[in-house]
Amino acid sequence: MSFDALKQEAFEANLELHRQQLAIYTFGNASAFDAARGVFAIKPSGVAYEALRPQDMVVVDLGGRIVEGSLRPSSDTPTHAVLYRALEGIGGICHSHSPHAVAWAQACREIPVLGTTHADHLTAAVPVTEVMSDEAIEGDYEEQTGQQIVQRLRGLDHHDIEMVLVACHGPFTWGKSALKAVFNSKVLEEIARIAWITLSINPAVAPMKKSLIDKHYRRKHGASAYYGQ
Amino acid sequence: MSFDALKQEAFEANLELHRQQLAIYTFGNASAFDAARGVFAIKPSGVAYEALRPQDMVVVDLGGRIVEGSLRPSSDTPTHAVLYRALEGIGGICHSHSPHAVAWAQACREIPVLGTTHADHLTAAVPVTEVMSDEAIEGDYEEQTGQQIVQRLRGLDHHDIEMVLVACHGPFTWGKSALKAVFNSKVLEEIARIAWITLSINPAVAPMKKSLIDKHYRRKHGASAYYGQ
Amino acid sequence: MSFDALKQEAFEANLELHRQQLAIYTFGNASAFDAARGVFAIKPSGVAYEALRPQDMVVVDLGGRIVEGSLRPSSDTPTHAVLYRALEGIGGICHSHSPHAVAWAQACREIPVLGTTHADHLTAAVPVTEVMSDEAIEGDYEEQTGQQIVQRLRGLDHHDIEMVLVACHGPFTWGKSALKAVFNSKVLEEIARIAWITLSINPAVAPMKKSLIDKHYRRKHGASAYYGQ
Amino acid sequence: MSFDALKQEAFEANLELHRQQLAIYTFGNASAFDAARGVFAIKPSGVAYEALRPQDMVVVDLGGRIVEGSLRPSSDTPTHAVLYRALEGIGGICHSHSPHAVAWAQACREIPVLGTTHADHLTAAVPVTEVMSDEAIEGDYEEQTGQQIVQRLRGLDHHDIEMVLVACHGPFTWGKSALKAVFNSKVLEEIARIAWITLSINPAVAPMKKSLIDKHYRRKHGASAYYGQ
Repeated sequence: MSFDALKQEAFEANLELHRQQLAIYTFGNASAFDAARGVFAIKPSGVAYEALRPQDMVVVDLGGRIVEGSLRPSSDTPTHAVLYRALEGIGGICHSHSPHAVAWAQACREIPVLGTTHADHLTAAVPVTEVMSDEAIEGDYEEQTGQQIVQRLRGLDHHDIEMVLVACHGPFTWGKSALKAVFNSKVLEEIARIAWITLSINPAVAPMKKSLIDKHYRRKHGASAYYGQ
Repeated sequence: MSFDALKQEAFEANLELHRQQLAIYTFGNASAFDAARGVFAIKPSGVAYEALRPQDMVVVDLGGRIVEGSLRPSSDTPTHAVLYRALEGIGGICHSHSPHAVAWAQACREIPVLGTTHADHLTAAVPVTEVMSDEAIEGDYEEQTGQQIVQRLRGLDHHDIEMVLVACHGPFTWGKSALKAVFNSKVLEEIARIAWITLSINPAVAPMKKSLIDKHYRRKHGASAYYGQ
Repeated sequence: MSFDALKQEAFEANLELHRQQLAIYTFGNASAFDAARGVFAIKPSGVAYEALRPQDMVVVDLGGRIVEGSLRPSSDTPTHAVLYRALEGIGGICHSHSPHAVAWAQACREIPVLGTTHADHLTAAVPVTEVMSDEAIEGDYEEQTGQQIVQRLRGLDHHDIEMVLVACHGPFTWGKSALKAVFNSKVLEEIARIAWITLSINPAVAPMKKSLIDKHYRRKHGASAYYGQ
Repeated sequence: MSFDALKQEAFEANLELHRQQLAIYTFGNASAFDAARGVFAIKPSGVAYEALRPQDMVVVDLGGRIVEGSLRPSSDTPTHAVLYRALEGIGGICHSHSPHAVAWAQACREIPVLGTTHADHLTAAVPVTEVMSDEAIEGDYEEQTGQQIVQRLRGLDHHDIEMVLVACHGPFTWGKSALKAVFNSKVLEEIARIAWITLSINPAVAPMKKSLIDKHYRRKHGASAYYGQ
């Protein structure tokens, strides 16, 4: 059974990441997961988006071993593998370098829920990880980045919160598919940008009230959702 | 009598909303009103702008009941209905998600009149609603959003002030036609962006003097207007 | 003798204003001056840039009377006329609505010389006029806008300083030709944007030293200039 | 032996500078160095990027004398010459006018290492030179600009740090090739932009820890690098 469909999905997600201007040059990466076979297809390392082809995607198992592909996979591959192992039910991951999301990550600040654009997509602040310990950095760094994310998500529902900021680094997002993960990266960038401007206009603004957050989220998610077709 | 012309007008307004980059993905919506028949055509919910066709527009009456169309109308349809019932003489409504207007709404701050670009279009600060009560949120939320706007406009002339910020949410604009409503959303975004930068350069800046506000507004509006052909 | 060449020059300057994204919709205007004949060609009022044709340009004399053209000239025409009468040797004027230049005008702050990008084009802060008196506003407003600019330029060399901010309003720029005036509007927008970011990074930054300002200006202007071909 | 290949390399780097929107109009310049022959090809002064042709590039020796070419070279040519003489092993230089990098230069502030996007490319703050003395300004200004840079780099490794901010002026970057120098200018602009937003979100943010800086740099550079193909 071929990996062509999986590679095609990863390819299209990476193209979309580029089309949505979520990274310059070779920065960032997206992957698509096949849970049944326990493998994911990911962008090759350091290749420009303009030059990507479906057949360049690298298929890797959950231990990070290459299953198919002649190129070296993204250096962030071990982070993806940790997340696919830990976050049950997800089908894609995106790591963008979009400027406003990266700025919040560098500021080591979670993004508070300041409006309905945020609440349409998640009911909590966009979480930010702890700064990594020197031991973790010197160990298997990319694996540790994944562990840091998983630890930060403890007690949170990763089907509600499909995005996280790695402190001093940048955003990781996920979703039911690779394209949904890229969509979440774009939404996060928009939330991050608007939150920055909001705080610049009114530094004393309080997070939005819980009832309004829940209302907006339930418009788009869950059994009583009524947004979309 | 067919609704084709009305649907075409709503379609073109939604296209223009997208072309002016006032929302990403499926966010936002515009509608066109036929006062004689008491119906409006609105964007279907959750459909990407790139995929929209004139026949996808949904025709709805002022009670929010579907009159024609096979798709579900925008989830903000009840808000549009309230505004068409309350704001005499308007022909279109636009709800954008443009970042600077949303930021002012999230900051719960009205946009003061800081310059002639603002005064060319309205003589007062862009008003912002109260934050909605829990009861209103738990009730018919979108209907209540409309009521909140109508209440905020009490004592104001909605033919002068064709825009409002819903606190923690974003902008709604209206006008004689659907395209004019979208135009007002773009103008609001520009006003909001420039006001943010202005206050960042000079936080102590005072609102513009009344005589200059009136002068600029009357250049473009009313019996003595002399702008345009 | 026809006005075709003059109208063509004004047309191209207005196209360039639009191409450089210095105004949305119908905002802004540029004109080209024929000093020998004492007339200038200017954008018609309220016409979208996308729809402009060379033959739409309106030829006006220095008293603001229409000499040729079937459309109404820009409402800012009297301001242009004042400047052509007062500023000896200029051949074009541009009034943009670019956001960062407008923000400085709205902030009623001159733009200090913070770097060589500024000094490459003028050796002084970009001046800002006084806020207009109520009498001037109620009088011939656009004429008074021109007078306000001329008064602010008193004691300054308008061949060195080819730009000014009208308080609470926006920028006017001029130059040897209409295209040069538009060029100056774009340069002003870039200076205004970078100055805003500079002050945001370091609010205590001092204006650049005089020797460096003069050096950069003389690289591009005057007898000892050595920039360009 | 012809200079065609060198001129082609310089031409493509200048095109890329323009494509990456690192300068408006004729601002900025890039050059390509042939160490074996001791010459470099550089953009002609004051020519618009849209009009550039490979044959317009000017070939200059390390004393700044024209070796081939009918146009006048960039006015910054002596700065390039100083850098090629002082910075062993580099093959290209880029001087952009990108707004955020220029803003940091105008703010006379080095850009601290706030995140991994920065550390992926250099392990130290982006250095900023001293403000030039009046004597240096009145002397051979462009030569002195180069000397100022070389002096600032003393004690630093110019193969690690391939970028510098000239106080009150703007960025100069270099690299193994002219295209790499332009790449570094784009990366610097991105770092500068994100650092500005980061500090605006959290003015008290501390520079990133040394262990994380080193880790990220070594992912992309040196014997143990594992990024790319």
